[in-house]
Amino acid sequence: MSTTTTSSSSPALPPSDRTRIRRVAENACYDRDTLYAIVDAAYVCHVAFADDKGTHCIPTACWREGDHLYIHGSNGGRLIKLLGKGVQACVTITHIDGLVLARSAFNHSMNYRSAMVYGRFEAVAEEGKAPALDAFMHHIAPGREHHARPGNAKELAATTVMRISLNEAACKVRSGGPNDDEEDMHLSVWAGVLPLVQQHGAPVPDVHNPQPAPDYVQQWSTAHSAP
Amino acid sequence: MSTTTTSSSSPALPPSDRTRIRRVAENACYDRDTLYAIVDAAYVCHVAFADDKGTHCIPTACWREGDHLYIHGSNGGRLIKLLGKGVQACVTITHIDGLVLARSAFNHSMNYRSAMVYGRFEAVAEEGKAPALDAFMHHIAPGREHHARPGNAKELAATTVMRISLNEAACKVRSGGPNDDEEDMHLSVWAGVLPLVQQHGAPVPDVHNPQPAPDYVQQWSTAHSAP
Repeated sequence: MSTTTTSSSSPALPPSDRTRIRRVAENACYDRDTLYAIVDAAYVCHVAFADDKGTHCIPTACWREGDHLYIHGSNGGRLIKLLGKGVQACVTITHIDGLVLARSAFNHSMNYRSAMVYGRFEAVAEEGKAPALDAFMHHIAPGREHHARPGNAKELAATTVMRISLNEAACKVRSGGPNDDEEDMHLSVWAGVLPLVQQHGAPVPDVHNPQPAPDYVQQWSTAHSAP
Repeated sequence: MSTTTTSSSSPALPPSDRTRIRRVAENACYDRDTLYAIVDAAYVCHVAFADDKGTHCIPTACWREGDHLYIHGSNGGRLIKLLGKGVQACVTITHIDGLVLARSAFNHSMNYRSAMVYGRFEAVAEEGKAPALDAFMHHIAPGREHHARPGNAKELAATTVMRISLNEAACKVRSGGPNDDEEDMHLSVWAGVLPLVQQHGAPVPDVHNPQPAPDYVQQWSTAHSAP
């Protein structure tokens, strides 16, 4: 995925003072299609926030619905308790696509797709929890929301679902080969890209599992989430 | 990798008020071998810190030497400038190993290896930069530090290398199959793990590349960094 191959039919995200990218600005993108694709390819995001003990960075599962990124957790967890107070958060998602080996050490780089989101989380109302968690199941494995036993009243009561708007966000995407300095092009050094791909391994059934594997399990290792 | 299979010959990390894990505490580990393995398997970490614009979470390349995690960047970058002021930081590394499908939606989980490090970065002295960046090259591809043109005086002067002690850190590791409630075991729902593996793709040589691929390139796609 690159900025030049992504067509955006949705309005661009106006960069804020926090999301305007200054370093290697040619890799910045502010269009929603790129942002949505980066979020949708993720199972986990990193949430940064501060409390009286300092700044924290916590990985947690995520999914997207419309123009919001969702997370969930136990009511009693630190992340949920703090975010519930409305503290400012920064959510970052990063996919690494390859190591870029240039002729000079200085021009080594990585290919990646990353998204940063600024804002405050809000709790999803009681009646919205079950549909949101169904959407999470669907993100994990489309169809799973119809197979797994849904949360009962007690489980739903113990769970908080939170969401953050994707309106203050920016993406940074690098793809392609090394960019060497002209004066290094004669050097006898191999240059190119060592790709990294998030691959799907063969499903591992639970030992107490008499059920045949549903389609989304059977198709798991033939699909993968790489670009 | 799991807490039970990791033998630690090095002293444990005493949990601090910030690193003591309270949620799903049975997945916590405080031994250095686990921490080092999680850091060494990473190409990128997420660094959280705060400034007058709020809390930020920035992905950046990382490597380890001894008991420190290293990063580098352009002197003028926001990350380097802020961290150089000695602000408190939290560095998090997360590897996702699989999606854990339980019989109930509530007991779905992920297999992962994560590390959180708290502290303050310090700049590496001028004379330490070149060896540290060699170690970074070695982490990217062992042997690369002998092939790529090393940084010249101008490039080294434009680059800041920073490190943070791994002394205040904690890891969290989950592996294995789903943990269903006893009363759900009769349900006709497939349960198991959908593995995710960071795989190495076939190297992509630069078009202007007359050199034969060195060993670390030729061996790239037969090796991978998954556990």
